[in-house]
Amino acid sequence: MPFKSGRRLAEPVFEHVAIVGVGLIGSSIARAIRRSKAANKIILSDASKEVLLRAEALGLGDDYRACAKSAVKDADAVILCAPIGATAAIALEVCGSLKRGAIVSDVGSVKGAVIRAIAPHLPAHAHLVPAHPVAGTEQSGPDAGFSTLFLNRWCILTPLQSTSDVAVSKIRLLWESFGASVELMTPEHHDLVLAITSHVPHLIAYNIVGTAADLEEVTRSEVIKFSAGGFRDFTRIAASDPTMWRDVFLNNKGAVLEMLGRFTEDLTSLQRMIRREDGDGLFNLFTRTRAIRMGIVKLGQETAEPDFGRRIAREADDEA
Amino acid sequence: MPFKSGRRLAEPVFEHVAIVGVGLIGSSIARAIRRSKAANKIILSDASKEVLLRAEALGLGDDYRACAKSAVKDADAVILCAPIGATAAIALEVCGSLKRGAIVSDVGSVKGAVIRAIAPHLPAHAHLVPAHPVAGTEQSGPDAGFSTLFLNRWCILTPLQSTSDVAVSKIRLLWESFGASVELMTPEHHDLVLAITSHVPHLIAYNIVGTAADLEEVTRSEVIKFSAGGFRDFTRIAASDPTMWRDVFLNNKGAVLEMLGRFTEDLTSLQRMIRREDGDGLFNLFTRTRAIRMGIVKLGQETAEPDFGRRIAREADDEA
Repeated sequence: MPFKSGRRLAEPVFEHVAIVGVGLIGSSIARAIRRSKAANKIILSDASKEVLLRAEALGLGDDYRACAKSAVKDADAVILCAPIGATAAIALEVCGSLKRGAIVSDVGSVKGAVIRAIAPHLPAHAHLVPAHPVAGTEQSGPDAGFSTLFLNRWCILTPLQSTSDVAVSKIRLLWESFGASVELMTPEHHDLVLAITSHVPHLIAYNIVGTAADLEEVTRSEVIKFSAGGFRDFTRIAASDPTMWRDVFLNNKGAVLEMLGRFTEDLTSLQRMIRREDGDGLFNLFTRTRAIRMGIVKLGQETAEPDFGRRIAREADDEA
Repeated sequence: MPFKSGRRLAEPVFEHVAIVGVGLIGSSIARAIRRSKAANKIILSDASKEVLLRAEALGLGDDYRACAKSAVKDADAVILCAPIGATAAIALEVCGSLKRGAIVSDVGSVKGAVIRAIAPHLPAHAHLVPAHPVAGTEQSGPDAGFSTLFLNRWCILTPLQSTSDVAVSKIRLLWESFGASVELMTPEHHDLVLAITSHVPHLIAYNIVGTAADLEEVTRSEVIKFSAGGFRDFTRIAASDPTMWRDVFLNNKGAVLEMLGRFTEDLTSLQRMIRREDGDGLFNLFTRTRAIRMGIVKLGQETAEPDFGRRIAREADDEA
């Protein structure tokens, strides 16, 4: 890292890919497949007629099917990109129609619950390779996607011990062709790591924006005006898709509550430092947290420029 | 808003400005004065010899004085830009040397405590116009400043009832020449508004970065790698200057603890929603918070692009 584009493919990874759910992530995958030539044919499906028509107008796929069952039936790989809460119903609907040897993958931010939702419906001849690309923006819908969303981002795969190695390496290759780095871990560890790096940060952002909106002493217009003081950084993630995030919290309840508990304990001790005017304690914490930021900048997950590295991704997309 | 540059001045606002403390904000003010021609002469002073030499190497002022007393003695306006904790000592040092009719201003993120630190030392012939530009980056030092830092940002003035209107309008004009919009409020209200829009957000960001750093189950390298999931947005503000922020919390203790109390209450109720799997409650909160974000984008305090509008400011600076 950082890559300028994805891994070059000698030949397509799949003949035929079906994407079920064409929002920010699903539409970005469709675009990334076009860019990397990772598949010869892309079939798109979405529960919303409007979204599917929009995907067609944008020319994101080769075929468009309102019926998920018919979308997946000839696919070598099926990628489920709907909100986590809809996964069980979609799995139930499509699993009976899967081609022999088909690989089912997904993009959910929670892995334990997604596996529990899909696995019972999966025929013995098919393979499940759960995936989570750690990338996104606060935008939603097929227009919001772009082909370089996954460039220089991580994609975590959480295969079961029984999963075929060939299936895992094909999904790995797919993500590497999008410019992502792939890491494997257990579903349980994934859910714990993401609870602290993603789920609890979103929860806190939603919470402070809600607290600010409810104040009587400070008007909403004042909150908006003076947001450049720090608050603004929270509103970006608090504008993320409500359905997706509701499902994340309902489906990763255990790890989220655990990490939230630690956050709250630490906040109580920080509160006490302020109450007791413990300047050294505050200074020490504030110095320590700088090191983490430097690690992130160093690892290319962020630039030192205060634009979050997204400018680079967008520019690469413009060039494509 | 948004402005492309600051208010055009028919003539300089001040003949002679002294800036005490040449960090991110002080050095940006020096650059902004040059750009707007708001003063004919800029004298810089800093407690650190190294910082002052660097300011001189960058050519930020017309004169450089290690001794704050000597820096202020001919100034029509003195702007204190040192951390809040140093304000009382600086005020004690310089106030006896102020020219007749001089205006003293500052840039502190807390106003009640700053006024209490300066007012007792101020001679009757001088004027105090406390100011707080709501702008900044996570960078520190004279190299980090830029002339358009205040463009399309708010600057809050908190004059006392006894303050001369002429002095207030001069400081207002100075900030407007930098491209800022000026708003007046009482020091008490300022401290409450900033507690929720800036101080508590910083505290929470510092706290979650600290929590993540202390985990045993999740390695620091994992936290850094997968930070794009949301955590990254917090690390930016948790990398802000530790001295400045220690002083903010020590000096706005009352309002910060009050707002933190409300945040914690709300977080407890959000935690309960997750525990009880109240999907509708979560969805409603997450939908409500989107509206606040839209207000911020609409008001030009942010662009819809996920780069926080800072690209625009930087580009305007490059053109200058």
